Amino acid sequence: MNVYAAPIRDLRFVLEELLAHRSLSLPGFEEATPDLVEAVLEEAAKLAGDVWGPLNASGDHQGAKRHTDGSVTTPEGFAAAYQAYVEGGWNGIGVSEALGGQNLPEVVASAVQEMLHGANMALGLCPMLTAGAIEALAHHGSDDLKATYLPKLVEGTWTGTMNLTESQAGSDLSQVRTRAIPEKDHYRISGQKIYITWGEHDAAENIIHLVLARKPDAPEGNKGISLFLVPKFLVNEDGSLGEHNDVTCASIEHKLGIHGSPTCTLSFGENGGAIGYLVGEEGRGLNHMFTMMNEARHKVGIQGIGVAERACQHAFAYALERRQGRAPKTRGGAECSISDHLDVRRMLLSMRARTDALRALALYCAAELDAARHAESSDVRQAAQARADILIPIIKSFSTDQAVDIASMGIQVHGGMGYVEETGAAQLLRDARIAPIYEGTNGIQALDLAGRKLQRDNGEALTALLSDVAVTVKQLNADPNLASLGSGLATGLEDLKAAQAIVLEQGTDPDKGADAVQAYATPFLNLAGHVLCAWQMGQAALSAQAALNNGSNDPFYTSKLRSAEFAITQWLPVGRAQRAVIEAGTQCLSKFEVY
Amino acid sequence: MNVYAAPIRDLRFVLEELLAHRSLSLPGFEEATPDLVEAVLEEAAKLAGDVWGPLNASGDHQGAKRHTDGSVTTPEGFAAAYQAYVEGGWNGIGVSEALGGQNLPEVVASAVQEMLHGANMALGLCPMLTAGAIEALAHHGSDDLKATYLPKLVEGTWTGTMNLTESQAGSDLSQVRTRAIPEKDHYRISGQKIYITWGEHDAAENIIHLVLARKPDAPEGNKGISLFLVPKFLVNEDGSLGEHNDVTCASIEHKLGIHGSPTCTLSFGENGGAIGYLVGEEGRGLNHMFTMMNEARHKVGIQGIGVAERACQHAFAYALERRQGRAPKTRGGAECSISDHLDVRRMLLSMRARTDALRALALYCAAELDAARHAESSDVRQAAQARADILIPIIKSFSTDQAVDIASMGIQVHGGMGYVEETGAAQLLRDARIAPIYEGTNGIQALDLAGRKLQRDNGEALTALLSDVAVTVKQLNADPNLASLGSGLATGLEDLKAAQAIVLEQGTDPDKGADAVQAYATPFLNLAGHVLCAWQMGQAALSAQAALNNGSNDPFYTSKLRSAEFAITQWLPVGRAQRAVIEAGTQCLSKFEVY
Repeated sequence: MNVYAAPIRDLRFVLEELLAHRSLSLPGFEEATPDLVEAVLEEAAKLAGDVWGPLNASGDHQGAKRHTDGSVTTPEGFAAAYQAYVEGGWNGIGVSEALGGQNLPEVVASAVQEMLHGANMALGLCPMLTAGAIEALAHHGSDDLKATYLPKLVEGTWTGTMNLTESQAGSDLSQVRTRAIPEKDHYRISGQKIYITWGEHDAAENIIHLVLARKPDAPEGNKGISLFLVPKFLVNEDGSLGEHNDVTCASIEHKLGIHGSPTCTLSFGENGGAIGYLVGEEGRGLNHMFTMMNEARHKVGIQGIGVAERACQHAFAYALERRQGRAPKTRGGAECSISDHLDVRRMLLSMRARTDALRALALYCAAELDAARHAESSDVRQAAQARADILIPIIKSFSTDQAVDIASMGIQVHGGMGYVEETGAAQLLRDARIAPIYEGTNGIQALDLAGRKLQRDNGEALTALLSDVAVTVKQLNADPNLASLGSGLATGLEDLKAAQAIVLEQGTDPDKGADAVQAYATPFLNLAGHVLCAWQMGQAALSAQAALNNGSNDPFYTSKLRSAEFAITQWLPVGRAQRAVIEAGTQCLSKFEVY
Repeated sequence: MNVYAAPIRDLRFVLEELLAHRSLSLPGFEEATPDLVEAVLEEAAKLAGDVWGPLNASGDHQGAKRHTDGSVTTPEGFAAAYQAYVEGGWNGIGVSEALGGQNLPEVVASAVQEMLHGANMALGLCPMLTAGAIEALAHHGSDDLKATYLPKLVEGTWTGTMNLTESQAGSDLSQVRTRAIPEKDHYRISGQKIYITWGEHDAAENIIHLVLARKPDAPEGNKGISLFLVPKFLVNEDGSLGEHNDVTCASIEHKLGIHGSPTCTLSFGENGGAIGYLVGEEGRGLNHMFTMMNEARHKVGIQGIGVAERACQHAFAYALERRQGRAPKTRGGAECSISDHLDVRRMLLSMRARTDALRALALYCAAELDAARHAESSDVRQAAQARADILIPIIKSFSTDQAVDIASMGIQVHGGMGYVEETGAAQLLRDARIAPIYEGTNGIQALDLAGRKLQRDNGEALTALLSDVAVTVKQLNADPNLASLGSGLATGLEDLKAAQAIVLEQGTDPDKGADAVQAYATPFLNLAGHVLCAWQMGQAALSAQAALNNGSNDPFYTSKLRSAEFAITQWLPVGRAQRAVIEAGTQCLSKFEVY
């Protein structure tokens, strides 16, 4: 039962029908034909389903192990599965040819990532972190650093990490204390970093740590923080590996989930200082890090969707197989599968509709990222970037919160079997539960949206996006079969506009603005996520209805219509309540005394 | 950080102020004075905080262990902690004096249960199951069975279990296949039962299994099922323990949580048949079992609240201690605890308000159970029982769903620390996650409410309850300080009435009634839970405001006002959305094809 089959049909529906492969017509993607994309998805599905997926449960069970010498062993099969990924050239699929990648659009890379995370989230984290390191180096590294490190990172023969957190510096990175002392052409790094994902492991030859640290004379706060590259093994002039750098894995965490992913405490400089190299400008480490974090956040959202998809598949399979009870007499009264009970079907459709909607929105955002990088006109590029900037905190936060709930609902579909670990349903909840926390907690995402992103352009980018939602409302209203969805989406749109007006108005109040943003951030993000997901499902309904009108009798399309109906008529209302939450004001929170 | 202090003040607020100790004036409780109740709560708090609570984390870590001889060892300290409970006379506190108990009202017993489950849910399950066995025996056992088994069960020196589930018989118990073959004055029981909580353990001298089984000539379906008492050790005439009965623990489950609670597969009759005794009438086993399940469901709701309270305490303590970031410049801009950030405070207040509301509703229901058993007038008793019947599925389902969400939010407050097992926050989610599943899944509860309970009196009992909600609306509206809460509660009340009308009307449709009940059950229960919780918080606001008007400057009362404001203005709107979900109709679910 606990198997994963990559949802190629669903992914292709979004790429081909909802997005009409628009990324493929951007300059630079001339070689990425629809046929090629299809072939890529098919191959990725094999890797995900045949190689990564079967290791998900055993990886959870065995977990990563740290030995007394500080080395870390990943679960059986992980290193080989990672090698298969590297050998298939998967690590560079979204990377430009100039850097040695396959130069496929982000939207295709995202689809592949969803499959890999759905197959094995703990293993998927390894290349996810490497992608962040590539991004940071490509944008901010010197030519020397790029020449030495990028090719191996793009291949995946070396992996990357992001070393941000220290025990006193979590959401507030201004508190970083790790030291970087200049010495010749490099620095000596010392300090302790925690929660370093894949910080030490046995699946690659070298590990390239990107580390936030401070020079001794650096100012307090954000502006004193710089970014350094610290390889596990020093790299000789000829590219071969030299000495082990002064960095060791002091411990790994015993976590709720993602047991196969070693979460390390790394000690730098216990023997004189680890050799590190400055990346980008001194004092701009946080900025450089955020370049990559924005995209990493999109990837965490995708990861949530991958796990949600797996939870759907798992629950559907169980509900179809498990026979219990009888259909109502009016439907024959025979013994039936639990999927015949409407109360169970409510859970299944809720899981499916939400997963469909989140996937569509996340891939929509990926297409915007493609446009932001590749569109010919700089106006188009800027507008697409602004739109992606708005969407990313929503995708990170909303997808991961929903993924936790979807995984939990998957347990519920299984009844008592869901609570027993061998079934595999519980692992999905345990794994998914990290996603709302890392890469900036979901609260931080909400503040980013309602504070920085919304306030900096007075809501312009969101307003532009919502005008596209209004277009979908009109299209739905024009089809009598879909008009009820149009009116449902329209009410959600009004709610979001009203909420936006409140957040913008109160958020700029000189006295209470900061508190207003904080108080409204989470309900606002939540509302935006619901409305934008409903929008995507409105588009899905239009596409599915068009296919049916054209004579298709593929049950896939009727299934997507049901997803859209559920999303707009039964899920969106829950999100719409967040308008009332915002209208209730800030007082209750600001007057609440925590003791 | 990971400590539990029983919430005596909160419990007393409900018992003394919201319920005005009304159970104490019922006939039969003459000796239960307010002072006695206070002393009982204080003593229970010591047991919970000093003895049971400290074993929560170690019990999770060690788990229960099964040995090759079929015996089961519970975690270190569990047996002694259970003995302390027995020696303190706690097992019988809600049991009548005639049966050897302390004869305290259910409302007091429920308060004590909340403390014990909050302290250690895995251990709390042991007496919870015994209470079910006591209930079943007291109502349906012969005088002989009662004489032999009840005293020890009431003391707690023997514990009880409920053996319902078989692999093919979960929610649908009509599929039970365990056999009972008559022999002299007893039966020979054979078959396998799964998911038997505390089915085998080392914390008591004997274990009394209550087992659903069928005689060979029994009809198919529910009517062929009888209830049998099967002791682990046979009991001699003189009350001493005799031979080990033919029942063994074949395995224990590896579960997501409640690791300290052994969940057993029990094999009956591998060597000729376990000796069992008929309880009650042949063929009425399910009815007899449901006598106790109704109350057991209330207890599971209470259990959820206990865990939710612990999650609140844990999150509050962390948020007060953890320093990160700065207050907005308008509030001084100093470094602060995360509890000063309004987005974190939203989580804390949401956790607290919901826990307060669920507790108030669950104890209100306990007071109704007291009235149902003890009120002088039979009309009052019947009305109270009808009201409790409506409330119990709501309390079981809504409290446990919310408890899962509250525990998950507790993890989120902790950030990365929440995902690391040593913090203890994750255990609360893992433990809580079973509660929506066992004692009838929450879907089954919803069907019980929207189907059986609502339809059997055409909504009369709920309508009567809602007229009390309307009284609270009026009282709130009469106080200018609370009028906004009154209007909020009033809108929720209207939604629930409208939803009730739909469920009653469509639920009785001869063609589509069964599907309508199934489709609406969960949203209806959810809406009812929200409105009734908001009602209780309306009453809490009235009490707290009255205390403040009388000159109290106890921050407890302002805290309860904030809880009430949050519950009604920021939580209730989310529940109100369920009216729209119901109004969306059944089509989307009935047309959805699962494949």
